[in-house]
Amino acid sequence: MSTPVETYIEKNKDRFLEELKAFLAIPSVSTLPQHRPDIERASEFVAEKLREAGIEKVKRIPTEGHPLVYGEWMGAPGKPTVLCYGHYDVQPPDPLEEWITPPFEPSLRDGNIYARGAADDKGQMYIHLKAAESFFKTRGAPPVNLKFLIEGEEEVGGEAIDRYVRENPGPLRSDVVLVSDTEMFAPGLPTLCIGLRGLVYTELVATGAAQDLHSGVYGGAAPNPLTGLIRIISQLVSPEHRILVPGFYDEVEAPSPEEKASWSRLPFDEKKFLQDEVGAASLIGEKDFGVLERLWARPTLEVHGIVGGFTGEGAKTVIPARASAKVSMRLVPRQNPAKIFASFQKEVARLTPPGLRVEVRSLSSAEPVAMEASHPMVQAAAKALSETFRKPTVYIRSGGSIPIVARCEESLKVPVVLMGFSLPDDRLHSPNEKFHLQNFFDGVRAVTKFWEYAADIPAR
Amino acid sequence: MSTPVETYIEKNKDRFLEELKAFLAIPSVSTLPQHRPDIERASEFVAEKLREAGIEKVKRIPTEGHPLVYGEWMGAPGKPTVLCYGHYDVQPPDPLEEWITPPFEPSLRDGNIYARGAADDKGQMYIHLKAAESFFKTRGAPPVNLKFLIEGEEEVGGEAIDRYVRENPGPLRSDVVLVSDTEMFAPGLPTLCIGLRGLVYTELVATGAAQDLHSGVYGGAAPNPLTGLIRIISQLVSPEHRILVPGFYDEVEAPSPEEKASWSRLPFDEKKFLQDEVGAASLIGEKDFGVLERLWARPTLEVHGIVGGFTGEGAKTVIPARASAKVSMRLVPRQNPAKIFASFQKEVARLTPPGLRVEVRSLSSAEPVAMEASHPMVQAAAKALSETFRKPTVYIRSGGSIPIVARCEESLKVPVVLMGFSLPDDRLHSPNEKFHLQNFFDGVRAVTKFWEYAADIPAR
Repeated sequence: MSTPVETYIEKNKDRFLEELKAFLAIPSVSTLPQHRPDIERASEFVAEKLREAGIEKVKRIPTEGHPLVYGEWMGAPGKPTVLCYGHYDVQPPDPLEEWITPPFEPSLRDGNIYARGAADDKGQMYIHLKAAESFFKTRGAPPVNLKFLIEGEEEVGGEAIDRYVRENPGPLRSDVVLVSDTEMFAPGLPTLCIGLRGLVYTELVATGAAQDLHSGVYGGAAPNPLTGLIRIISQLVSPEHRILVPGFYDEVEAPSPEEKASWSRLPFDEKKFLQDEVGAASLIGEKDFGVLERLWARPTLEVHGIVGGFTGEGAKTVIPARASAKVSMRLVPRQNPAKIFASFQKEVARLTPPGLRVEVRSLSSAEPVAMEASHPMVQAAAKALSETFRKPTVYIRSGGSIPIVARCEESLKVPVVLMGFSLPDDRLHSPNEKFHLQNFFDGVRAVTKFWEYAADIPAR
Repeated sequence: MSTPVETYIEKNKDRFLEELKAFLAIPSVSTLPQHRPDIERASEFVAEKLREAGIEKVKRIPTEGHPLVYGEWMGAPGKPTVLCYGHYDVQPPDPLEEWITPPFEPSLRDGNIYARGAADDKGQMYIHLKAAESFFKTRGAPPVNLKFLIEGEEEVGGEAIDRYVRENPGPLRSDVVLVSDTEMFAPGLPTLCIGLRGLVYTELVATGAAQDLHSGVYGGAAPNPLTGLIRIISQLVSPEHRILVPGFYDEVEAPSPEEKASWSRLPFDEKKFLQDEVGAASLIGEKDFGVLERLWARPTLEVHGIVGGFTGEGAKTVIPARASAKVSMRLVPRQNPAKIFASFQKEVARLTPPGLRVEVRSLSSAEPVAMEASHPMVQAAAKALSETFRKPTVYIRSGGSIPIVARCEESLKVPVVLMGFSLPDDRLHSPNEKFHLQNFFDGVRAVTKFWEYAADIPAR
């Protein structure tokens, strides 16, 4: 038997979808200055829909970048407060010619909605708004206090929200943060993400001669910053993928035997992963660890790009005066980004070959995150998901880093529930991004249930 | 007492210079399509001045690229034939704002002429034309047979002339090739270059996944072509600058004790070289060899540029699907480019890490060159230089590669005399390129003397 909230959701599906289409039609690409008016429109759209849902004190908060949208409803004294996070900005749609239907003309096909931002994150964040509305329009009020904080810079670093959360722990006081910006492990499989890798992203800048030199005339006597960077980086990680920075593994916490056992029960096909997702000759990595453990619970070191010298067509025999490399490390729980960066910097200095100066810069960092699956809020979310999708909820981690999650944990001292509804083939950041419609509606249902169960947990 | 030829040169200095200025005013930049009409003009200028000098059968030879200019005078039967090589094309003048006077408005300052191409190679090749003219206008004929072959693609690879020489050894039959496109070791020091390093220029293209991947989501399982290239390259050359390709040093011929001893007598100041020319913290290289030996007679391996991944501002966490590196090796006498490339290719294949495919392409190559200082033609040139500059001629090598020199040696089976008149501070390829006027006029004198002495050597 359906509850009034469930009935409301079912009856209003078409309107929910029309609203989402209008939202997706706004090309709120945060990285491109020419879309600044669209960013404004998208933030106004969110503010308006929050008000329509029943949320109070809705405001757009100006920042040095794109505006934050904030709203709250604090009409449930004694009940816990859920802070809902999401982002209204999207990735650029390029390459445009690969889209079957235009990225900002949302189109329905095979039970999916196709548009840039459909899953990342407009479709997912809109779930929270429609969940709130469903309570206000049926029972007059949600069972918990709600705060919404929605940003417009997630795809460009999220600096404004990071600062805002750091500086406003009081106004943002809550019992749990709800984020719907991750994916389900498989279609129909309710999933909670309870761990994220951290990140230290660096740039190594090597300087040799005072100007670019001819490799014929000077080769054999002049230092080559490119060769130097290669020599340094090759000594930072072993051929067996072990990172050689002293003390690097000291704080690494292995996943519990229970967590590892749960991963082995996930529907993961290594061969399919290699063929369908990676498409390389073979997978690589530390041989004593399984693929999921390598992706979720082992640190890595990657080179993302090298600048310097000649990179055009053909042959130019230059010894560049300067070269730089972008090198990042993914971190796992208990590793500390600042400490790792300091050791990394020291090791690079030690490895710097004669004739070169190498400067190491930190471009960004994020703490690794590990949530307790046993926390009552996580359990409430798991129960809501299991009921909605009629399957036991699985607990996974993600190899990526979501800096705002670490920021909320650190500054607000509350758990973050990562209840994501996108699917592995939703093509986030790629052409033909989509969101499964059933997951959109099930998402609204699951979030309403989560709030119901959360209401039974004592507020702090 | 001056000879009539010397008197003629002295009397016509101003006109020679006016002509050179007109030549230098043509912006014959070979790499830029918009300068195609200037290339035509420059080639016509050369053809016209060859005719005016007294050279016969002057023609412009169309090629797939820029035209060659050819001319000959074969009126000295039984005497040797000198094939004079030069190029009328120049490097682009960028950065324009660094020129004190515009690159194509030749300007005289402090005994120098400033213009793009002043030393490389218009000013130097024009010496040959004025030397020929000086004989025709005074004695009615030069003492040797002359052939001129002047190209317009030296700065962009010289493909047309390479093919022309390969395919026309008969028409180009000669006893010696004269090239004035190198420098004097020091101001006022007559110099013959008798060795050049060779080159194998390669591109390594590494492929991993089917598309760029997120380093958070896939790092630890997906192969990284950038890291792979770094691993490969770091194993191709030791930290002590020894190249680790098997068999690489097998054919290397060390310079004779006499040649090494002559280098130690050259006015070379290692400290000044480091400070004024290189400007790095220190010099690098194989510790058992002196700087000049490392630059002239030791092979090297250099990385010139790496493409792939993210190289913009800031941080993007991508594992690129594909990356490539430009890697070259300078070769020394007796090393064979084809053989070295084959060993290199094999070694890269052996070093390729799991998960990656690496293709090795050869982008260009040049044979190393070593001339016999004792060859009568080299001795004739040395004598001409010593008399002109009133100092004993020194024999040096160059670390660079001049593919046309190796091509002439191989296809025409004659020695190449590298009689250069530019100075170490002439800023070839850089802003404010110049040519010392005294070297221009002394160059004309030295070349006329060389031809006189060459006339006494039996033709083949």
